[in-house]
Amino acid sequence: MSKPSLARGTRDFGPSVMVKRNFIFDTIKRTFQKFGFQPIETPTIENLSVLMGKYGDEGDQLLFKILNSGDFAKDLSQKDLDEGSKKLTHKISEKGLRYDLTVPFARFVVMNRNDLVMPFKRYQIQPVWRADRPQKGRYREFYQCDADVVGTDSLICEAEIVLMLQEILQNLGIKNFTIKINNRKILSGIAEVIGVKGSEVPLTVAIDKLDKIGKEKVEEELRERGFSEEAIGKLQPIFEIQGNDTQVFEKLRLWLKDSETGLKGIEELEKVWSLVEGFGLTNAQTQLDITLARGLSYYTGAIFEVKANGVQIGSISGGGRYDNLTGTFGMPGLSGVGISLGVDRIFDVMEELNLFPDNQDVTTKVLVTNFDAEAEKYSLPLLKQLRDAGINAEIYPESSKIKKQFDYANRKNIPFVIVVGSDEIQSGELTLKNMELGEQEKLSIDLIIEKLK
Amino acid sequence: MSKPSLARGTRDFGPSVMVKRNFIFDTIKRTFQKFGFQPIETPTIENLSVLMGKYGDEGDQLLFKILNSGDFAKDLSQKDLDEGSKKLTHKISEKGLRYDLTVPFARFVVMNRNDLVMPFKRYQIQPVWRADRPQKGRYREFYQCDADVVGTDSLICEAEIVLMLQEILQNLGIKNFTIKINNRKILSGIAEVIGVKGSEVPLTVAIDKLDKIGKEKVEEELRERGFSEEAIGKLQPIFEIQGNDTQVFEKLRLWLKDSETGLKGIEELEKVWSLVEGFGLTNAQTQLDITLARGLSYYTGAIFEVKANGVQIGSISGGGRYDNLTGTFGMPGLSGVGISLGVDRIFDVMEELNLFPDNQDVTTKVLVTNFDAEAEKYSLPLLKQLRDAGINAEIYPESSKIKKQFDYANRKNIPFVIVVGSDEIQSGELTLKNMELGEQEKLSIDLIIEKLK
Repeated sequence: MSKPSLARGTRDFGPSVMVKRNFIFDTIKRTFQKFGFQPIETPTIENLSVLMGKYGDEGDQLLFKILNSGDFAKDLSQKDLDEGSKKLTHKISEKGLRYDLTVPFARFVVMNRNDLVMPFKRYQIQPVWRADRPQKGRYREFYQCDADVVGTDSLICEAEIVLMLQEILQNLGIKNFTIKINNRKILSGIAEVIGVKGSEVPLTVAIDKLDKIGKEKVEEELRERGFSEEAIGKLQPIFEIQGNDTQVFEKLRLWLKDSETGLKGIEELEKVWSLVEGFGLTNAQTQLDITLARGLSYYTGAIFEVKANGVQIGSISGGGRYDNLTGTFGMPGLSGVGISLGVDRIFDVMEELNLFPDNQDVTTKVLVTNFDAEAEKYSLPLLKQLRDAGINAEIYPESSKIKKQFDYANRKNIPFVIVVGSDEIQSGELTLKNMELGEQEKLSIDLIIEKLK
Repeated sequence: MSKPSLARGTRDFGPSVMVKRNFIFDTIKRTFQKFGFQPIETPTIENLSVLMGKYGDEGDQLLFKILNSGDFAKDLSQKDLDEGSKKLTHKISEKGLRYDLTVPFARFVVMNRNDLVMPFKRYQIQPVWRADRPQKGRYREFYQCDADVVGTDSLICEAEIVLMLQEILQNLGIKNFTIKINNRKILSGIAEVIGVKGSEVPLTVAIDKLDKIGKEKVEEELRERGFSEEAIGKLQPIFEIQGNDTQVFEKLRLWLKDSETGLKGIEELEKVWSLVEGFGLTNAQTQLDITLARGLSYYTGAIFEVKANGVQIGSISGGGRYDNLTGTFGMPGLSGVGISLGVDRIFDVMEELNLFPDNQDVTTKVLVTNFDAEAEKYSLPLLKQLRDAGINAEIYPESSKIKKQFDYANRKNIPFVIVVGSDEIQSGELTLKNMELGEQEKLSIDLIIEKLK
């Protein structure tokens, strides 16, 4: 006998949480499909040759690795132990667990390049695994929901990402959110005009903290990272550019006038803004944020990040355009743009703002009581009628006291109970009890079905 | 650069296969919910202490084990290597991948015993992993769909399993199938009356092959397994009992008249038959099969197995009643009954019988063409109108030749294309092309929406 426990950083999802999570998944899926994205799934287990080296050294460490089957240790010697765990890993493990959905998607595209219809629009909703230290809101097993279009550099795709995010969040009931947008080329342009071309990464890491630590500390950090006073002086506009998006674009154009790349970035973003408007989306909650960077080394065009306002929860979505999804697998030059939604964060936002609707339709709608063999026999065909009409229905499986059966219905959030006693059997008029209101009425099974449908 | 490959025994699912698989999953889920089952999910990664020892020695071998994170080898010495892979495993691995849905469900029930509403009806649809040798139709990663009721021994549950199986298979379009049913107590009764009480396992393993190898070979195998001539002589009725279910029950009752357990098994099954009839299910494709055993050591009451007729594919579903789901985790005496559906086998049956419907609703319904900037601008608000009306729609993201765009629609199975040329922009009457019939007509966007909805 073993005392059962969950592996660290993993979770069970019971019925009430599942209903809420499925509401999120279904809302996301419906929107993805409405925009022409098709589902794919890739395996949980991937060869380590596919996964390793794609997420940096830290990522390699965080990969869950699967021990080879069979007599994996038979050729090992003390020498292998002396070489340390890292080298030993390669001798006893060839496979690992999916770390994100992007690398498996890239592998999928390369392996199916001859069959895919380009531009290829896919969505993928699956768990990923990371051997991270678990903490509040951070799990070792969690779902990602990704949508990507590859094989086109049309900015319509960026505009449609804005539309999709708007639709998903509105349908979830999250009304107050901000879709922050930037463009990698603008960041490159800034680096260029302040004379630190190629140093976007340390530059942006520092700038990114502006909200939290303020201008002075950002400048201090830049100094520590070796940026010259001249560069820092030239960076001043970033602290000063303000106004609505049109005004920011205008000032930015002036500032970056000597950087071809920077101007291209502005032009791309303005085009995205104009396409979103062209779609007739009048309430786009977008915001140009020239400090936004997210995984800078990967993105080459637009960069997205979504935050829910009014809650202290990190970003609920992020993404951007990339130029070289599949280069690492020998298929260079494939451009695409994608977005990833974090279901756990969205769940937390919705819980905190109390946004989940009552999802009665996915659990049982009505319970039929069971007092004795006669009532049970009488009830079975009624139950079949209810179900044939598409109503989720169950009978209490054993003859029991009414209190116990009502308690079962209440605890399972079943909104209606049909009471079948001897009166009901004689008259054919059944008692339908509304568990929330406590009201009850006598009705024929046909009327009950009509009412519950 | 690495040449990408799939791990052995795993699969990618592209859009067209996903649509078909989702049709199966959705059909199963809808029925489970209609009968009052609620969804749960358990983690992919479980502690090995939860998994080991639950599936026999072979099962332990087939568990995928996860290498501990960090410097797992730092305390290892030559001595550990000398002890062999099996012992070494425990020193470098504490976690494994889910092998089935039953053991995690048992763990879930025990860990949540105080919060669960009993009887607890759950369904669970998740992948499982086995380090089996891959072969045709056998994968290392595959989905299981389980539904179980625990906390009651009411035979209504067995009857409802029959109803659910009927409904699922009919809704999938699988018309010709057989739900074989037996009861462990009948097998015990047979063992008792032929004088080999307790030897059900070797007895049943042999009997189970009757269809394939015939009576003589079965008897030969029984001899080899040490059964006496007397026992084999007494077993003769099993080869002779024939007729419809009522007749078989009658003959069985006579044969097993001296075994209380055997008679109890007959009584239970007759009750299930009568409940199924009581529900008003007139076309139940059930068949009493007194040789059916399936995981004998686990089941204590009813045993189910479903086969599709007319195809050479193994059973597509199996299950039964058990008395001690959670005993191994220190919570004895929990009775339940469950069924598991094999999605891969069901998929194969449906492919072979060509049963998949055209699932156009889950992919894109209509493509809007894109010939130039003017047409694109004109089309964006139309696209929004289509989507706001709930129609899955996309625009070809780049200006392109019409042939390329039609080709895209055809390859992606998009049934309609809206052609937006200069004529259409001027008149406001758009060309709607039915890609299957090749017909086209000019319509306003409102009429198109009405038509496509």
